[in-house]
Amino acid sequence: MSGPLSDLLIIDLSRVLAGPYATMVLADLGARVIKVERPDGGDDARAYGPFINGHSAYFASINRGKQSIALDLKAPADRAVFEALLEKADVLVDNYRPGVMARLGYGWDALHARYPRLIHAAASGFGQTGPDSQKAAYDMVVQAMGGIMSVTGWPGGPPVRVGTSIGDITAGLFTVIGILAAVHDRAATGEGQFVDVAMLDGQIAILENAIARFAATGESPGPLGARHPSITPFAAYQCADAPIVIAAGNDQLFAALCRALDLPGDDPRFVGNDARTRNADVLANVLEAVLQTRPVAHWLPMLESAGVPCGPLNNISEALANRQVQARNMVVHSQMPDGTPLIVAGNPVKLSAHVDPTTRTAAPSLDADRTAILKELGL
Amino acid sequence: MSGPLSDLLIIDLSRVLAGPYATMVLADLGARVIKVERPDGGDDARAYGPFINGHSAYFASINRGKQSIALDLKAPADRAVFEALLEKADVLVDNYRPGVMARLGYGWDALHARYPRLIHAAASGFGQTGPDSQKAAYDMVVQAMGGIMSVTGWPGGPPVRVGTSIGDITAGLFTVIGILAAVHDRAATGEGQFVDVAMLDGQIAILENAIARFAATGESPGPLGARHPSITPFAAYQCADAPIVIAAGNDQLFAALCRALDLPGDDPRFVGNDARTRNADVLANVLEAVLQTRPVAHWLPMLESAGVPCGPLNNISEALANRQVQARNMVVHSQMPDGTPLIVAGNPVKLSAHVDPTTRTAAPSLDADRTAILKELGL
Repeated sequence: MSGPLSDLLIIDLSRVLAGPYATMVLADLGARVIKVERPDGGDDARAYGPFINGHSAYFASINRGKQSIALDLKAPADRAVFEALLEKADVLVDNYRPGVMARLGYGWDALHARYPRLIHAAASGFGQTGPDSQKAAYDMVVQAMGGIMSVTGWPGGPPVRVGTSIGDITAGLFTVIGILAAVHDRAATGEGQFVDVAMLDGQIAILENAIARFAATGESPGPLGARHPSITPFAAYQCADAPIVIAAGNDQLFAALCRALDLPGDDPRFVGNDARTRNADVLANVLEAVLQTRPVAHWLPMLESAGVPCGPLNNISEALANRQVQARNMVVHSQMPDGTPLIVAGNPVKLSAHVDPTTRTAAPSLDADRTAILKELGL
Repeated sequence: MSGPLSDLLIIDLSRVLAGPYATMVLADLGARVIKVERPDGGDDARAYGPFINGHSAYFASINRGKQSIALDLKAPADRAVFEALLEKADVLVDNYRPGVMARLGYGWDALHARYPRLIHAAASGFGQTGPDSQKAAYDMVVQAMGGIMSVTGWPGGPPVRVGTSIGDITAGLFTVIGILAAVHDRAATGEGQFVDVAMLDGQIAILENAIARFAATGESPGPLGARHPSITPFAAYQCADAPIVIAAGNDQLFAALCRALDLPGDDPRFVGNDARTRNADVLANVLEAVLQTRPVAHWLPMLESAGVPCGPLNNISEALANRQVQARNMVVHSQMPDGTPLIVAGNPVKLSAHVDPTTRTAAPSLDADRTAILKELGL
C-alpha cells in the first residue's frame, strides 16, 4: 500500500493484539509488514472467534495487508532466513514476555551489534524492567490494575470492563509512536534503538483527569455512570424511547439547551458549571422530565439545530452505518481467506499527500508468502 | 527536554484535551511545544477543575513541559508574531472546528504555499470532510456515536461512559502518529502535509473485535459487564472482600486455575474455551463459590504463584502506588504555577537511547514565555 511509511520494512513476531494492532496501523500508513509466525498454527489469534466459514474474522481484521512466513526460531535453517530478513528490516516488533528474545539469542545487545540500524520494539504486559516484568498480563488484568475500571461503571454497581481491549490497543498505539520516534532519531544518528512499551504503563498514561483529581484531593475518584466528572450537563439522558447524550460544556451551550427544552435559564441551582456539577442529579431529573415526553427522533434534530452538542447511543451496526463514518471512509473492505467480503475499520489518520484506500488486501494464510520472500532474499 | 524529537518545534493552537494531549506526548519525547493562546484567558482548560490553590490541576497535568505566548490571531501585530513562529516551526497543531483556520487566513492551501515544509495537524470532532464536519463534538458525544458505550456496561443496565476521555485521548494518539508519519515523509519529499484526525473516526478504529463480531453474525454485540466476549474465564470474580480479575486465556492456564482452587479440571461444561464461553455464567458461579471463602489477599499471591494471570481492581491511588508502575517511572513529578508539587502520568514510551526523566517542568502561565520568544524571533 502506498503511504508515508512505504519505505519501511517491519518484521513482526507479535501475536494476538497489542503488537499486531501496532503493525496494522503501520501497514495502513504504507509500511510493509512481514509476520513471522510459528510453524505449528501461527499467531494464536488464528484460532480466536468470531469465525466466518471456519476462519477467524478476528485475525483477518487485525492482520489485513500483511504478509506471512512461518519460521521456527530454534531451527538453524529458519534462523538463517530470519536473520536475512533482519538484514533488510527497519523495525522488529515482538510482544513476547521479557526474556524470550534473549533466550533465542536475539536480545537487544546482540541485535544492535549485528544490525546497528535495526529498531526493536517490544510490547509487553508489564514492561522489560521492574519487579513484576515477568508476570503474565492480559488486557483484563491491566484494565483492572491500571485503574480505568475503578472510574468506569455506576457508583455502587459491579465492576465494568471497557468493552474493547483498550489495554492492548493503547499499548499498540504507544508502540507505533515509539517506533516512529526511533525512526526519526535514526535519520539523525544512523543507529536503531530499543522501544519498550508496557500495557500497564499505557493504562496509567490514559487516566488523564483522574490522576489530577486524586492529586488535588487525595481521594481516588469513583465511577460516575454515564456522566463527566467535572462538566455538567455532559451525560446520557433518557428520552421517551431511549437515551441520548448531551454535552453542553459551557454556559452558552447550557442556555441554548434551556431554550430548546423551554426550561428557565436562570434557575440558581444551575448557574455556572460548578453549580450544575454539584447539582448534577437534580439537573438530570429536570432535563429528563422534559426529554421523556418525546422520542429520540424528536429531540436530536431539535437540539442539533439549536447548536447543542448531542448524539445517539449507537450500537455497532448504527455506528458503522453513520453517514459521517461512511463519508470518512472509516469502514473499508477486505476479505476472508476464502474470498468472503469482510468489513474492517479504516485508518483514522487522513493525510493530504496520500490517498486513503477503500480496500485492504486480505490477511495472509500461514506461511503464504514464503516462496516470494525466500526468492527476494536470494535463498 | 532531551529525546528523539528534540529537533522539532511544534506550534500548538489547540485547547482542552485532544490536541494538548497530542502535544504532551510529543513534548515527552523531546519536542519543543509553544502554546499559542487567546489573550483573554487562554486555553479553556485553565478554568477546569480540579483546582489546587486556585489553579487548574487538569491544565497543569496536560500542559507540563510546554511554553506559552498569548496572541490575538485577528490583530495584525500578533499575526506577524504567529507567522514568524510558523517560519521556524515543523508542525502546527489545532483542534478548532473545521473552517476556523481558513477564516483566519491560515487554511491549508495558504499555509502550504507560504511554508512548504510546515506540517499542519488538525484534530476535530467529526473531521474536515463529510456532511457532519461542522457539528460540535465532545468526548461524550463521540463515545456514544462511535459505539464503544454500546459494548461497555452490564446487559440490561444503564449506559456507561468509559471513565476517562477516551474519545479525546485516542484522537490525540492518532494525531501524534499522523504527525510523525508526516515528519518521516517530509524527510523524503521536502514538503509538509495536512493531517486530519477526527475523534469519531478514532472511536471506530478502537472497536476491534466488536466489528468482527458484527461482520460475522450481522448482530450488534452488547455489553458484557466485566468479562471478555470470547475468552473464558477472563472476567472480574468476587472474593470474600472484593473482586479480582482472572484472565486464564487458554486450556493450560484454566487447568492451573482449577488446581489452585482445588476444582476438578475435567468438568465437561468447561472443556475448551468455546464450552467455557458458552457456560460463562455457570463457570463464574463455580469459581466464586470457592473464591468467596477467602479474601483477595489470600487468592492473589496463590494464583500468581500458580502462574494464573490475575490482578486486583485497583483504585487510582492503588494504581499509582503499584510497585511496577513506580519502578517504570510512570508517576513523575511536576509543579503547579505556585510551586506546589503535582504528580502527573509519565511517558509509556521507554527508549534505550534516551533517559526517561522523573520530572517535568511546570505548565506555563498564560503568556509566560512572550519575552523570550520575541527575542528569539528578533522581534
